[in-house]
Amino acid sequence: LKVFTLNSNPKLAEEIAEHIGTTLGKCTVSRFSDGEIQINIEESIRGCDVYVVQSTSSPVNEHLMELLIMIDALKRASAKSINIVMPYYGYARQDRKARSREPIAAKLVADLLETAGAGRVITLDLHAPQIQGFFGIPIDHLQGVPILSDYFEEKNLDDIVIVSPDHGGVTRARKMADRLKAPIGIIDKRRPRPNVSEVMNIIGSIEGKTAILVDDIIDTAGTITLAADALIEQGATEVYAACTHPVLSGPAVERINNSQIKELIVTNSIPLTDEKRIEKVRELSVASLIGEAI
Amino acid sequence: LKVFTLNSNPKLAEEIAEHIGTTLGKCTVSRFSDGEIQINIEESIRGCDVYVVQSTSSPVNEHLMELLIMIDALKRASAKSINIVMPYYGYARQDRKARSREPIAAKLVADLLETAGAGRVITLDLHAPQIQGFFGIPIDHLQGVPILSDYFEEKNLDDIVIVSPDHGGVTRARKMADRLKAPIGIIDKRRPRPNVSEVMNIIGSIEGKTAILVDDIIDTAGTITLAADALIEQGATEVYAACTHPVLSGPAVERINNSQIKELIVTNSIPLTDEKRIEKVRELSVASLIGEAI
Ligand SMILES: Nc1ncnc2c1ncn2[C@@H]1O[C@H](COP(=O)(O)O)[C@@H](O)[C@H]1O
Ligand SMILES: Nc1ncnc2c1ncn2[C@@H]1O[C@H](COP(=O)(O)O)[C@@H](O)[C@H]1O
Repeated sequence: LKVFTLNSNPKLAEEIAEHIGTTLGKCTVSRFSDGEIQINIEESIRGCDVYVVQSTSSPVNEHLMELLIMIDALKRASAKSINIVMPYYGYARQDRKARSREPIAAKLVADLLETAGAGRVITLDLHAPQIQGFFGIPIDHLQGVPILSDYFEEKNLDDIVIVSPDHGGVTRARKMADRLKAPIGIIDKRRPRPNVSEVMNIIGSIEGKTAILVDDIIDTAGTITLAADALIEQGATEVYAACTHPVLSGPAVERINNSQIKELIVTNSIPLTDEKRIEKVRELSVASLIGEAI
Repeated sequence: LKVFTLNSNPKLAEEIAEHIGTTLGKCTVSRFSDGEIQINIEESIRGCDVYVVQSTSSPVNEHLMELLIMIDALKRASAKSINIVMPYYGYARQDRKARSREPIAAKLVADLLETAGAGRVITLDLHAPQIQGFFGIPIDHLQGVPILSDYFEEKNLDDIVIVSPDHGGVTRARKMADRLKAPIGIIDKRRPRPNVSEVMNIIGSIEGKTAILVDDIIDTAGTITLAADALIEQGATEVYAACTHPVLSGPAVERINNSQIKELIVTNSIPLTDEKRIEKVRELSVASLIGEAI
C-alpha cells in the first residue's frame, strides 16, 4: 500500500499516511516552462495498491489535470490498484442540465477519472449524492457531519438549534440535530413578487437559541452570512456556521469577517490558505475519517 | 455547420468562419467565482455539424478543460457531429515513456477528448506523427511547411539552405527544401565526452549561404538561438528561423531578441501575446489551410 500526494492537500495526505502507519511515496509534480504538468514518480509501485490524495479545489483545472496525469503514470507503471482520495469533488454543482445546452461537468469528471484509469474513489459530502451514480467504479461517500457534530458536542453549548440554509440541506441538518439531540430550523428563501428581493423566512423556533447553520459548501458566503443576519433578527442569541468544504472564493473572507457569525467550523477537505486563516475560522481534520476508509 | 471558439484562438476562429462563409456561433465561456469553467451555448445546435476551435496552448490545463466541457455540452445538446479544430496539440512532447513511471499525457489527452464526445480532430504538425495513432476517431493532420515555404518563396532569397535543428526534424526540412529547391543541412548535437558541453556540429555546406532553420515547436528558444550562432560561426551570411507553433515560454522572447536570428516566421496556431509581438517575429495565418480541411 502506497500513499501519494499531489499539490492540493499535501498536509492532509501526510496525516492520512501517518494514520495508516506509513509515509508518503516519493513523487514530484512540477511544471515545464510552458505550464505543462511534469510528474516524476520516484519509487517503484509495481503490484502496489496505490492511494492518491487530491481535491479538485481551486485551481480546479490544474488540480484535476495533475490527478489525471498521475493516474495515467500509475497505470503505466503497473500499479495493482489505483484509488483516488478526493476529499473535495470540484464541478459537483454542474450536476444536471438546469438550462438548455448546459454541460454536466460532474459526470464528465467522473468519466475522465475512469478513462485515465481510476479504480475506486473515496470522497466526502458530494454536493448531490446522486453523483455517486455517475461512476461505474466503486465510490466511498464519507460524511463530514460526525466530525462537525463532535466539535459542537465538546463545546457543550446550551439550547441549540441546527439550521439548514436551504431546503436542499435539510437531511444534513437533520443528521447533525440527531447527533446533538437538538431541534432543526430551515431557511425558506422566497421572492414575494418578481423583481422584489428575496426574503429569508425561517421555519422553526429560533428565539433565544444558539443557531448552528450547516451546509456542505461555503463558496462566496453570501447565503450563509445573510442567513446569519436573518437568524439574529429572529431572536437567535448567537450564530455558528459549519461546513465540510470551505471553498471561500471571492468576497467570502471579508463577508465572514463582517458577519454576525461567531465562529465558522470547516474541514481540511480544502486547505485554508493564509488569507483564509482568520480568527473566526476553525479547521478540523478528516484524516482519521479517510484513514479508516482506506 | 456551426463554428464556435473558446478562449485560446478567438481571432483565428473568426478567420476560419469567414473563410467558410459563416460567422461564429454564440457562446460565452467564463469562470464562476471559484474558478470553475462556466459555458453557455446561446443558440440551438441540435442536428448541426459543430466545429470547435481551441488550441491547448498555455494555460494548457484551462484550455483543455474548456474544450472537454464544451464537448460535453454539445453532446448533450444533440449536435450531429462534434469536430475539434486544435491547431496546437498540447502535451504532445509527453508521447512515450522515455524513463520509468512516466505518463504518456499525449495519449491521455486523446482518450479524454474521445470520452468527452469528440468525433473528429483537425490538427497541425503534431510533435510526433505517431500521435495520430493515439486516436480511435478520424484525425486530419495538416502541415505548416507549405505556408512557411510560401513566405520564403515570396521573399526570393538568394542561395538558401534549409537547416533542421536536430535529426528528428529532417523530414520537415526536406519538405521545405523540396518546395524551395534548396539543399538541406542538419545540426548534429553531440557531447564529445560526459560532462563536456555539447558541440553543434553542422552536416551540409553552409558557407556563404542564407540559412533557414525550421522546427515544429519553438518553446524556450534555447536550441534555435544556439543553432543560429553555430550557423553564423560556420559562415552562414544570414539566419532565418521558422516554426509552426510559437510556444515561446520563459526566456524565449529575450533570447530571440538577443540572437543572430534575423527574422522568425511563425503561424497563429498559438496567437502571439503582446510581449511576443516583437519586430523580429512575423505571424502567418493558418485560417485558409484549416478552412479547406473543414
Ligand atoms: N462553481 C460554481 N460556482 C457557483 N455556482 C455554480 C458553480 N457550479 C455550478 N453553479 C451553479 O449552481 C447551481 C447549482 O447549485 P445547487 O442548486 O445548489 O445544486 C446551478 O445553477 C449552477 O449553474
Ligand atoms: N512541455 C514540455 N516542455 C519541455 N520539455 C518537455 C515538455 N513535455 C515533455 N518534455 C520533454 O521533452 C522530451 C521529448 O521531446 P522530444 O525528444 O523533442 O520528442 C522528453 O524528455 C520530455 O520529458
